[in-house]
Amino acid sequence: MKGLDPEIYDIVCVSPRNHMVFTPLLASTCVGTLEFRSVAEPIARIQPAISREPGSYFFLSNCTGISADKHMVHCETVTEGEQALDPWSFTVSYDKLVIALGAQPTTFGIHGVKEHAIFLREVHHAQEIRRKLLLNLMLSDVPGISEEEKRRLLHCVVVVGGGPTGVEFSGELRDFITRDVRQRYAHVKDYVHVTLIEANEILSSFDVRLRNYATKQLTKSGVRLVRGTVKDVQDQNIILNDGSEVPYGLLVWSTGVGPSPLIHALDLPKAPGGGRIGVDEWLRVPSVQDIFSIGDCSGFVESTGRQTLPALAQVAEREGKYLAHLLNKIGKAGGGRANSGKDIDFGEPFVYKHLGSMASVGSYKALVDLRQSKETKGISLAGFISWFIWRSAYLTRVVSWRNRIYVAINWATTLVFGRDISRI
Amino acid sequence: MKGLDPEIYDIVCVSPRNHMVFTPLLASTCVGTLEFRSVAEPIARIQPAISREPGSYFFLSNCTGISADKHMVHCETVTEGEQALDPWSFTVSYDKLVIALGAQPTTFGIHGVKEHAIFLREVHHAQEIRRKLLLNLMLSDVPGISEEEKRRLLHCVVVVGGGPTGVEFSGELRDFITRDVRQRYAHVKDYVHVTLIEANEILSSFDVRLRNYATKQLTKSGVRLVRGTVKDVQDQNIILNDGSEVPYGLLVWSTGVGPSPLIHALDLPKAPGGGRIGVDEWLRVPSVQDIFSIGDCSGFVESTGRQTLPALAQVAEREGKYLAHLLNKIGKAGGGRANSGKDIDFGEPFVYKHLGSMASVGSYKALVDLRQSKETKGISLAGFISWFIWRSAYLTRVVSWRNRIYVAINWATTLVFGRDISRI
Repeated sequence: MKGLDPEIYDIVCVSPRNHMVFTPLLASTCVGTLEFRSVAEPIARIQPAISREPGSYFFLSNCTGISADKHMVHCETVTEGEQALDPWSFTVSYDKLVIALGAQPTTFGIHGVKEHAIFLREVHHAQEIRRKLLLNLMLSDVPGISEEEKRRLLHCVVVVGGGPTGVEFSGELRDFITRDVRQRYAHVKDYVHVTLIEANEILSSFDVRLRNYATKQLTKSGVRLVRGTVKDVQDQNIILNDGSEVPYGLLVWSTGVGPSPLIHALDLPKAPGGGRIGVDEWLRVPSVQDIFSIGDCSGFVESTGRQTLPALAQVAEREGKYLAHLLNKIGKAGGGRANSGKDIDFGEPFVYKHLGSMASVGSYKALVDLRQSKETKGISLAGFISWFIWRSAYLTRVVSWRNRIYVAINWATTLVFGRDISRI
Repeated sequence: MKGLDPEIYDIVCVSPRNHMVFTPLLASTCVGTLEFRSVAEPIARIQPAISREPGSYFFLSNCTGISADKHMVHCETVTEGEQALDPWSFTVSYDKLVIALGAQPTTFGIHGVKEHAIFLREVHHAQEIRRKLLLNLMLSDVPGISEEEKRRLLHCVVVVGGGPTGVEFSGELRDFITRDVRQRYAHVKDYVHVTLIEANEILSSFDVRLRNYATKQLTKSGVRLVRGTVKDVQDQNIILNDGSEVPYGLLVWSTGVGPSPLIHALDLPKAPGGGRIGVDEWLRVPSVQDIFSIGDCSGFVESTGRQTLPALAQVAEREGKYLAHLLNKIGKAGGGRANSGKDIDFGEPFVYKHLGSMASVGSYKALVDLRQSKETKGISLAGFISWFIWRSAYLTRVVSWRNRIYVAINWATTLVFGRDISRI
């Protein structure tokens, strides 16, 4: 949306939330290293046309379906929080449609995950984790609680699926415990424990040296690593496949993402395996007119011979930039209307070049892997310098100057004053 | 709590929230001029002993009763947000007890206020107002909404009871509309209206010249002032005493405060009228041992011949400082234990000297009234300089350096980038 030219197109955004979440820094907000608003970017700031131009709009709604033949999107408003108003449906006609619905956390059909675990994808997830963590810290200090209950309440369990989010959250949690809990919850500090459950290997996309470093670093800082598969989640216990019970007070579920039910339901071509929307080399959905798809919800169709790209922010960002440029080009060449522009030269297809992966592991340490893929050679490093690169890189990726300032100030005040522990 | 000497006393705080709200700046957080955390101060930072010392504690609980004869407080934990745990009761024994329960908003028994209006006392109230305001702005821009419904949704009504909170909120709301809504919600900007309903006069505690200035300033900036009494509140309409209906999208209720049900229920002497806990000149509750009371929940008993002080932050703050000093003195003189210290000289009684009142009215304007009471003469001013005094004065009153920095930075970024409009 940022790159689209509002002089060429009227831009309409349909979304149930009015902001973009800078997910790579979301884990830091759970313990107060960063504030929630520092990682949320209002869409109206990303593309000001939607709130200014007469034909451009932001609709706070869910998309419920697409009629590709009629060039029409079906929507339903989100009225949660306004009890005097029931949600209503409406349709939006389009000339060009970009489907960028993202993905949703996967539960592998395990019973109890949705009810008892907290995901880490949206700001309200981070808010819930922070509120619960502080609640448990305070409740375990109140008279009348048993030793066993205290241990359970202060046991934070993170179930990870190889991605950096769960590992980064564990690291942040350890930093919070090492510094802030010791100072602010001295009575219960010895009861707080962090366990990380992983079926295979943590950070499987990183090279083996970095993986070992992360394992060593996490273990040293007190995170217990458990190799296991979750069978069932109950309100106070996790049951693993080997039958063992793990009592928990806070359960964060971070095992990767998959397509949402809407993506499954859409009558559009799919990418091989996994059910993502299929696109060609120009990010067009084949066999229909004027529909494009980018980000975690799309993958290449079989005929392209390309592999589906990983569900990463840098993939989505690069695809978005490419597509904005392409759409502007189509519009300028007179193909901006529905069912037009078939003869326009689309130019170079989209090519993704992986810049590398990063993950922080707490205690001012991080991993930086600059290989283009798992098979190729390249630079990889771990430690304090990596941590500095991690912070600097993300600071430059934060979308607006306002939030860049706030992220820097949050980091500075956390260093000087510690993390904020007020439960609001 | 801040002034108590942890070397003399073990300090135990029983409270359902773990932070203090700097209420004078709460109105600014509703529209994003300030962030919520900038006005919330964790209690563990105000008095670090509660999280560090072996005998000092913070208990996240409500007080449910007091047994003055047994020197015992009855409590019940607050477990909201932890579904695997039911609240439980416990008791805390004390040597000295300070009742500082504050007050709660008054509804005058008007039907529907609790269900449909939002108060402005806690951070979660401000969060609710901000979420609802942004929701209404966005919903009114979605296709399928009628003109009438749009007008209703964007009608913000503030019912005030003479205090500055409602007036300051109206001013903030106008500033938000003038600057941010025009930029970010240009499609609906002409539908947004603010109405202030007041039974008598706004800012009745200020001198007549300042009152007139405030009225003129608010009217000029587009706030509609309505003289009226609310009879009934329905989910979309307010019914006034004259029978007229006022449709609203957001209703903020700010008609002052009164004692909470617990204060009413406590078997302790009361101050004349209003049901506050009665105290003597040394803020002791007469006829019982070792109980003191300060802030909005207490007033002088009849025998002192003193008038009950207004429910203001500066009264509570001064009483708190005085009492901390007195309790330290009693403790040092060996009277810190229960039922001891009867023969100790309490020294000078508490004397309240009013420093003045301030209220901002939006558009960089404020009122400053430095008279000691309504009857005496003194300096009073209004305008930009007052606004500057208002901001400077509150900045020095914010409790911690951390929040002082954040308040200043919030003000600066609001000036440069505008208010944050992400609905998280």
